[in-house]
Amino acid sequence: MLLRGTPTRTIEASPDGRTVCVLDQRLLPHRVEPLRLSDLADAVWAIKDMAVRGAPLIGVTAAYGLALAAQADASTEALRTAATRLAGARPTAVNLAWAVRRALEALLPLPPAQRPEAAWALATTMADEDAAVCESIGRQGVEVLHALARRKPGRTLNVLTHCNAGWLATVDWGTALAPVYRAQADGLPLHVWVDETRPRNQGASLTAFELAEQGVAHTVIADNAGGHLMQHGQVDAVIVGCDRVTAHGDVANKIGTYLKALAARDNGVPFYVAMPTSTLDPHLTDGLTQIPIETRDAREVTHLRGRTGDGSLVEVQLVPDGTAAANPAFDVTPARLVTAFITEHGVVPASAQALGGLGQAVTR
Amino acid sequence: MLLRGTPTRTIEASPDGRTVCVLDQRLLPHRVEPLRLSDLADAVWAIKDMAVRGAPLIGVTAAYGLALAAQADASTEALRTAATRLAGARPTAVNLAWAVRRALEALLPLPPAQRPEAAWALATTMADEDAAVCESIGRQGVEVLHALARRKPGRTLNVLTHCNAGWLATVDWGTALAPVYRAQADGLPLHVWVDETRPRNQGASLTAFELAEQGVAHTVIADNAGGHLMQHGQVDAVIVGCDRVTAHGDVANKIGTYLKALAARDNGVPFYVAMPTSTLDPHLTDGLTQIPIETRDAREVTHLRGRTGDGSLVEVQLVPDGTAAANPAFDVTPARLVTAFITEHGVVPASAQALGGLGQAVTR
Repeated sequence: MLLRGTPTRTIEASPDGRTVCVLDQRLLPHRVEPLRLSDLADAVWAIKDMAVRGAPLIGVTAAYGLALAAQADASTEALRTAATRLAGARPTAVNLAWAVRRALEALLPLPPAQRPEAAWALATTMADEDAAVCESIGRQGVEVLHALARRKPGRTLNVLTHCNAGWLATVDWGTALAPVYRAQADGLPLHVWVDETRPRNQGASLTAFELAEQGVAHTVIADNAGGHLMQHGQVDAVIVGCDRVTAHGDVANKIGTYLKALAARDNGVPFYVAMPTSTLDPHLTDGLTQIPIETRDAREVTHLRGRTGDGSLVEVQLVPDGTAAANPAFDVTPARLVTAFITEHGVVPASAQALGGLGQAVTR
Repeated sequence: MLLRGTPTRTIEASPDGRTVCVLDQRLLPHRVEPLRLSDLADAVWAIKDMAVRGAPLIGVTAAYGLALAAQADASTEALRTAATRLAGARPTAVNLAWAVRRALEALLPLPPAQRPEAAWALATTMADEDAAVCESIGRQGVEVLHALARRKPGRTLNVLTHCNAGWLATVDWGTALAPVYRAQADGLPLHVWVDETRPRNQGASLTAFELAEQGVAHTVIADNAGGHLMQHGQVDAVIVGCDRVTAHGDVANKIGTYLKALAARDNGVPFYVAMPTSTLDPHLTDGLTQIPIETRDAREVTHLRGRTGDGSLVEVQLVPDGTAAANPAFDVTPARLVTAFITEHGVVPASAQALGGLGQAVTR
């Protein structure tokens, strides 16, 4: 997608092939600053501290992290240790564990001397695959948008999204936003309601940023406002991403997704989940009890960073001194609230049978 | 309730009886600063700019505003103009229009010379009545909490609330929080989940502040988190306030209330609305189409004020430059999602029949 008008990926090996370049997403939208990851510790930190985030992107970052680790020490023990550290950096997104396992399984059978080069090549392949998967999700999902648009000819289609499941959450294109970008290319009149997505505000900062970069019309709203908009017919479809999906179609995604799914159901608004099949976890059957939900620092709720009038970034406290806060980072939307999954292989209903067909294609 | 350990009302006539003293709620929780309202313009501004807020409190503030107006010019024309300005300061809460109409109807039959004194006396009466109504809501509502507590003996009761419908939204006691304070006095082990309530964060700032002042255990959460907590059995009851209730029981309240009501219904959590009967609008039958929803400045979504490490209050920008935002301030929760109303006259179901009985007691 475009960054300052130039086609850009969110993660790329540097020209010397020994470091990895990402965007520091903690500074967006206020500052666009590249961040260089030079070793395993950098990669683990970038994932944990959310300098990179989004299930697909952290998977690819982990693959590059393993390449950085192999560059320093390609022994089996070192790679296993690196894999454990990377996979443990964040617990909810299944793509992370999947990417690490896939890389490890490809590298360990090789002689240690061949592992560094193979690790870099594999990370690049996985980045390319992610971009291709997302592009395909865009092609599949745009048909959904065209079908909705045919019901209201001549009027702008309103899509609501939560958090950031766009270009910045992936290598390119995005998941939930890929159909939006494809629709834009097709000339479909479209507007996006952007949930700000407290506590980290990935909607207000990242989704608003990337939609503006691509020139897609959008309006930021408080997370509280989506239900009201749906009650008044101002939302034609909800499209969100996901961090882990069970065999039966329960969806772990950014905290608050469940509330929007309830409102969509209550108002007859279709609720779509854009899902690369790598996000399917076919071993799980009950999302509510089986998906581990990451609890993050209370400070993400009690404090917030923004830009002052003079352009500096400052963190402000929102609560009285000493106030306790809880910060579950994800929730689980039951399959019964999901209209369909938009995958790279097609649009499928939220049923064990339909997802089972996809699951067979997932290497675990 | 207690402010810095001293029993305090949120609004009081100053000792000289010619000005009104309120707390500047825009500065809470970071600074506790009294604000003096000296004339009609002060009162209109304080309501519009939300230096005072909460349906019951803005009603009483309007009554005092009319007294301030009468002090300057007690002619019928001046009072009618003042009433129009006060009633128009905020559109959604019915208490505001109700208080202004009640005061006007009491004052206009009097000779102009008697009006200023009568206006002050009436405002004081309305403040006393509001405190008494809220205290009664507390007595009625605590029975609901005791009944819930009997189902889980020996364990802490978890109540979730949205926005601020506590002491700070009223003259004393609060509406949604009055049962909580009464339960605290009864020694019931209780903990409150406080929705931060974007965009103005009345939960994180005001509710957290007043619960801390009274020593009630509480935890602030992002507005996105309530559904997740309910899914995991961590909420025993939701209690919210209201700004206008229709004859059939549809509830206008702070934006996002509807989403919590949906989650409560989906998880079998009882959803209570604390309602002084002055908030009932018996002329309306359909909340979604008939209750005017205030749209506030987009800047409340795109910017946010907090306290920096050095104690200064600064406003920070959360979105990219030029980002559009929408800011509906209220939503409507359909009666079907309301378990019961906690009123000063008792706990009543959300039915036209039950509310009709209350409605007959409301002077319009």
